[in-house]
Amino acid sequence: MTDPLTNLQCPIPISDYPTVTLAHGGGGRLTQMLIERMFLPAFDNPQLVQQHDGALLEVNGARLAFSTDSFVISPLFFPGGDIGSLAVHGTVNDLAMCGAQPLALSTGLILEEGLPMEDLWRVVQSMQGAAQAVGVSVVTGDTKVVDRGKGDGVYINTTGIGLIPAGVQISPTRARRGDLVLVSGAIAVHGIAIMSVREGLAFETTLASDSAPLHEMVREMLAVGGDHVHVLRDPTRGGVASALNEIAGSARIGIRLNEAAIPIWDQVRGACEILGLDPLYVANEGKLLAIVAPEAADAVLAAMQAHSLGREAAIIGEVTEEHRGRVVLRSRIGGSRVVDMISGEQLPRIC
Amino acid sequence: MTDPLTNLQCPIPISDYPTVTLAHGGGGRLTQMLIERMFLPAFDNPQLVQQHDGALLEVNGARLAFSTDSFVISPLFFPGGDIGSLAVHGTVNDLAMCGAQPLALSTGLILEEGLPMEDLWRVVQSMQGAAQAVGVSVVTGDTKVVDRGKGDGVYINTTGIGLIPAGVQISPTRARRGDLVLVSGAIAVHGIAIMSVREGLAFETTLASDSAPLHEMVREMLAVGGDHVHVLRDPTRGGVASALNEIAGSARIGIRLNEAAIPIWDQVRGACEILGLDPLYVANEGKLLAIVAPEAADAVLAAMQAHSLGREAAIIGEVTEEHRGRVVLRSRIGGSRVVDMISGEQLPRIC
Repeated sequence: MTDPLTNLQCPIPISDYPTVTLAHGGGGRLTQMLIERMFLPAFDNPQLVQQHDGALLEVNGARLAFSTDSFVISPLFFPGGDIGSLAVHGTVNDLAMCGAQPLALSTGLILEEGLPMEDLWRVVQSMQGAAQAVGVSVVTGDTKVVDRGKGDGVYINTTGIGLIPAGVQISPTRARRGDLVLVSGAIAVHGIAIMSVREGLAFETTLASDSAPLHEMVREMLAVGGDHVHVLRDPTRGGVASALNEIAGSARIGIRLNEAAIPIWDQVRGACEILGLDPLYVANEGKLLAIVAPEAADAVLAAMQAHSLGREAAIIGEVTEEHRGRVVLRSRIGGSRVVDMISGEQLPRIC
Repeated sequence: MTDPLTNLQCPIPISDYPTVTLAHGGGGRLTQMLIERMFLPAFDNPQLVQQHDGALLEVNGARLAFSTDSFVISPLFFPGGDIGSLAVHGTVNDLAMCGAQPLALSTGLILEEGLPMEDLWRVVQSMQGAAQAVGVSVVTGDTKVVDRGKGDGVYINTTGIGLIPAGVQISPTRARRGDLVLVSGAIAVHGIAIMSVREGLAFETTLASDSAPLHEMVREMLAVGGDHVHVLRDPTRGGVASALNEIAGSARIGIRLNEAAIPIWDQVRGACEILGLDPLYVANEGKLLAIVAPEAADAVLAAMQAHSLGREAAIIGEVTEEHRGRVVLRSRIGGSRVVDMISGEQLPRIC
């Protein structure tokens, strides 16, 4: 066995980051540093370098998407969902962001000793309900139990295999000048719903997570947009700002956003003000961003708006050749500012 | 969305098991209860019911194996390996137990805040070294960080896709009367290696884990045994006894083991005596059990013995029509006893 890596120095500067911090899992700058400096060079392969939401595999002429996600959300149960449905939606959505329809899911449960058996049952029922609604099966699984104080109730990994229809070519590197940026609905709902539970915020009506499976809306978008749909991304951890920064980096293009066009509910905007959060950085679980060639954007937008999960879809920006690798926001009052990737950990354990 | 399960009563008797215990993850009777009473009825589908080490999917005429495993071993680093190499070997072996050669792996890391960055780097290097030695790539991944005291350094999920060659039909239900039971080498090595670190046992020489990838040996076994190789199983958690009990249950056959034929090192036997453990219940990570038609058993045994990981392979028992669903051991002194599935948690967090 040859292992060229053995004894190489740690590629993360130990003096700056002697230990893993919550921000390394926040989906922002420190997560990106781990990926770019440690994981990509170590696991070096053409799939991983794409930094897509999943890997693409070709088997007997079929194009498969393969995607994994672990869920560590706290609390386990929240308005609009729980860790079980979230774990199904999250991986179905990662497959959908590759343009794929789901074929099969696996689940790996890490249970903490002392978890109430009825909580496990609720989570399992919720996973199955979500999988059934999607039309996919959990075909294989694994269960581990860790000692009390070494977990937090339940952590769930779901990994999925999906089938990519012929003609579909989704990749973060396909964004090009003139493409339009679409969002499927109002942003920051999941993060604020979770945060309001944690902080005990009282709203006039309960704000529920937007957690939902996006594969059907994607199928309808691809039916009308086909090859003109260049990039899909669900803006989970790190929110819309971090997702678009990742794409701007991968495709080496600039993105200009129009603040006034970004749909956001008053209740969410108000909560963000109280909590001191920028909604562009708050996690979503049932929303997607699409980067689409201009000639197809209206048709794709109409397909989104015709779907129950995309009624508030909007065109929120465009791809530019200026300020490559960056996202710039044109504010309501006409100024412009750079919207960077999130640098700390705004909301730990949001998914 | 129809969800027939909602509001059904928890299928595990809450009065007996109000909470999840370590034994629910031990690979024995309580794990089996969770699977049979909760997971199988909830996620009801023909794949899962097989209780194989992975699910079988057919895509464009290709037969794929799909398998997931989470690794929560303590300590992270141990003689003969670490959680990184173990996470690669474990999933490669689950694919191999379906008769498959590995195509691609995913990894989901759950890191605890405060994990030394250099430990993460050691684990990542070890995963990559193991994947490279196998000839498979980690093509997609996910990283989460949980708060200090909600994890234990690193938990790793690896999920794999493998390709099953034409003509291979491995399934736990294929065991039939007259088949012979083969083991690829000396048992209980991984479990005793880990236990000796935890308990501070001093041996004359260090006992290293047997963690190793078994896909090549399986390929050679299938090349000579083909369709005569009926069942493959790696006896990890719960050991040889639990693995054979699972097969006896799935196939509704009996298994008779010959104690004198089971290879075990003196050092391991001695440690088991000191620790009060039965080696039949101790975990292995680089061993496999094969149930093979009698006409092919000698050829398959020779293929195992010709491989570096199978030098001590032996025929240790046979499939019977008597005592269906049970495993019976004929002892060295001629008596017989039922070898049941493990009922408690002998060695928590062994994989």
